[in-house]
Amino acid sequence: MRQDLWRGIAALSTPEGLRNRLGRRAFLGLGAAVTGSLALGTEPGHADPAAPPADPPWSQALGAGVVDRPYGQPAEAESGVIRRNVPWLTVGTQSSVSFTPLQDLNGIITPNGLFFERHHAGRPDIDPREHRLMIHGLVERPLLLTMNDIMRFPQVSRIHFIECAANGGMEWRGAQLNSLQFTHGMIGCSEWTGVRLSTLLEEVGVKKEAAWAMVEGADGAHMNRSIPLDKCLDDCLLAYAQNGEALRPEQGYPLRLVVPGWEGNISVKWARRIKLGDKPWFSREETSKYTDLMPNGTAYGFTWQMDAKSVITFPCPEKPLQGPGLHEIRGLAWSGSGRVKRVDVSTDGGVNWQSARLHEPVLSKALAKFTYAWRWDGRPALLESRVIDESGFMQPTMAELRKQRGSNSVYHNNSIQTWQVKPDGSVFDVQLA
Amino acid sequence: MRQDLWRGIAALSTPEGLRNRLGRRAFLGLGAAVTGSLALGTEPGHADPAAPPADPPWSQALGAGVVDRPYGQPAEAESGVIRRNVPWLTVGTQSSVSFTPLQDLNGIITPNGLFFERHHAGRPDIDPREHRLMIHGLVERPLLLTMNDIMRFPQVSRIHFIECAANGGMEWRGAQLNSLQFTHGMIGCSEWTGVRLSTLLEEVGVKKEAAWAMVEGADGAHMNRSIPLDKCLDDCLLAYAQNGEALRPEQGYPLRLVVPGWEGNISVKWARRIKLGDKPWFSREETSKYTDLMPNGTAYGFTWQMDAKSVITFPCPEKPLQGPGLHEIRGLAWSGSGRVKRVDVSTDGGVNWQSARLHEPVLSKALAKFTYAWRWDGRPALLESRVIDESGFMQPTMAELRKQRGSNSVYHNNSIQTWQVKPDGSVFDVQLA
Repeated sequence: MRQDLWRGIAALSTPEGLRNRLGRRAFLGLGAAVTGSLALGTEPGHADPAAPPADPPWSQALGAGVVDRPYGQPAEAESGVIRRNVPWLTVGTQSSVSFTPLQDLNGIITPNGLFFERHHAGRPDIDPREHRLMIHGLVERPLLLTMNDIMRFPQVSRIHFIECAANGGMEWRGAQLNSLQFTHGMIGCSEWTGVRLSTLLEEVGVKKEAAWAMVEGADGAHMNRSIPLDKCLDDCLLAYAQNGEALRPEQGYPLRLVVPGWEGNISVKWARRIKLGDKPWFSREETSKYTDLMPNGTAYGFTWQMDAKSVITFPCPEKPLQGPGLHEIRGLAWSGSGRVKRVDVSTDGGVNWQSARLHEPVLSKALAKFTYAWRWDGRPALLESRVIDESGFMQPTMAELRKQRGSNSVYHNNSIQTWQVKPDGSVFDVQLA
Repeated sequence: MRQDLWRGIAALSTPEGLRNRLGRRAFLGLGAAVTGSLALGTEPGHADPAAPPADPPWSQALGAGVVDRPYGQPAEAESGVIRRNVPWLTVGTQSSVSFTPLQDLNGIITPNGLFFERHHAGRPDIDPREHRLMIHGLVERPLLLTMNDIMRFPQVSRIHFIECAANGGMEWRGAQLNSLQFTHGMIGCSEWTGVRLSTLLEEVGVKKEAAWAMVEGADGAHMNRSIPLDKCLDDCLLAYAQNGEALRPEQGYPLRLVVPGWEGNISVKWARRIKLGDKPWFSREETSKYTDLMPNGTAYGFTWQMDAKSVITFPCPEKPLQGPGLHEIRGLAWSGSGRVKRVDVSTDGGVNWQSARLHEPVLSKALAKFTYAWRWDGRPALLESRVIDESGFMQPTMAELRKQRGSNSVYHNNSIQTWQVKPDGSVFDVQLA
């Protein structure tokens, strides 16, 4: 993208920009009258382009010292950047979900304080010294491991997304939630550090008959899932750190499974037990939940992989456009099957598509960032993004998804999101026929 | 590294491991007496390898709900993982530094709450709506920008380390601080999101005579530094987000410069002004401070680049070895000139070197992770790491550094760190002759 495409946007496109435009004239010495109007406004205005801006209060005083907050906190002005839940979704918040505020985030890393939560019996308060991981079943040498034991094994760090299978699930039957946070916020991407599950399975010795692992959490729900042995030996981690520091309690402290690219529910938190067997367990999360009800009344089970998906994070319902002119459309793309290969953007509801810029690093089973320069003429628009991953899979429309799977599904909605832009710049969650 | 190299370490090498070994026998049904001893210990012991472990209290109750903490916090048990300062280093904490607890971190991302701080007049409390960035001097169109203006420009995200030039500075004259946190903790690595400085300079139009930029902070110190125009146009960012979310106040909220690979002081926080000129400004931070006093009494100025450096983060003084046997030596390596190419590890004070495993992703001017499997025989050892970067530069010893620069320096100590391991597993900061 040519840099000079952007020239002038800051000064011309927004009310604040217009003030800057006046300011610019002031700097060029075009008149004291203009400078006067700046001094009356919110600008630290002045007439001399050689002098620094006037000093606001924070430039005239000593601030707080280091270790004033030995563990840091966000700025007071950012107090609205929080996880949120949908109160009517569940009876209580112990068996509920909170959503990541994607509309306020930039980049591919989700900070730990804002990573979405999903609990089935609330967030347990586990003593890491007492926590144990048991590995048993069809193994040669069953083992009970302390956290110290686990941390001693060879360590790996990997940047991966975790997305709840139900992300966007409330949108299956129609556009319901006019919010990026609530339509897409059940996803986060972090650097996970721990031991490969294959390393621990090597330690216990897998018996020939073993084909499945059951992983169980230490929370009150004892949440458990069955995982094929092949996936366990491929890229699963038992993680104890997220973005450098120990896991947060709501992310499975002190130990969680991370199953890259698969539905979040299977990345069992507070992991306490791994049992190997010759067939799957058919747990509650594999029969009553996390199955996909098809139009003919049958249900698909074990639909683990999160297919390729993308979403425009700016603009979005929470972040409308401030006026016509040049804007940078920004978004995130990901795929449970590997790397993102290409992202396209449409401003006319999918009639025409243009390639977006994909930003490095593009990591396997991780969020990837894309941007696209768009000159908005102030007329209604329909913004969409679609991703193509390295397997060649292209993100489908909601109509295509419904054609295949009907409208009973809750899980695995990876459809193209349409944001409707109105002439006043406001943005709405809509679905095209 | 072969997986089976590690077989048995969990069960054999630590007191806890020995208990596990008993546990293992119990699981294999080797005797009720052993099981009994487990039941008396801290283990949730049981004799039946087919049954799950006994339920601790947190497995028998409802936990806290989602959005109980809309902005998350670390686990209570991790309350010792904090930034720390050296009280005697400065008169007050407003002009001081806090250190990142590297000994407790894993991976290449430093979480925002633990990223080291360095203030010259304390941490200002800035209203982002009132904050302005002025760009003036030798430019065609001086400009005063709001945060909204800045966020509208094309956005990039980059993972880079920031290291204080004085990291390890107190070690120049001898081993003083028996601590990884205090010898190496003035470094962190995050994903920074913002606008390229080159984009803004394109907007204002750089005059032909311009060769330098002066960047000034909005804190009470009005901290400022001179930067060659070439570096400004190369890879500098004006960042407003760190690891996804808005910068923390102590990291320059709402806007900071990020100068990849150069000493941290030049990544001016709370950036409010950029002035272009035809020569450097020779600010206080370029004359009285951040210069390197040589043995002959002259001082080097403008020694910006942080040369290649590495350190073993496990074991370290804060994290001793729990006993002989197989251990994974872990560490971090980085270079201000680009990518890390190779890391070597020595266990005999630099007599013999072996290549460590370098972990992906290895990003330019970012922390890189290395590991090395080491079977400790319980005898005294001297652990060292050295990095070679893509420019071919090899990390020097302290003796080599002193030979060139004497012992008056405070800045740019990138020497090899030696950790002495004593027979009891304790680890000490030492310097070899």
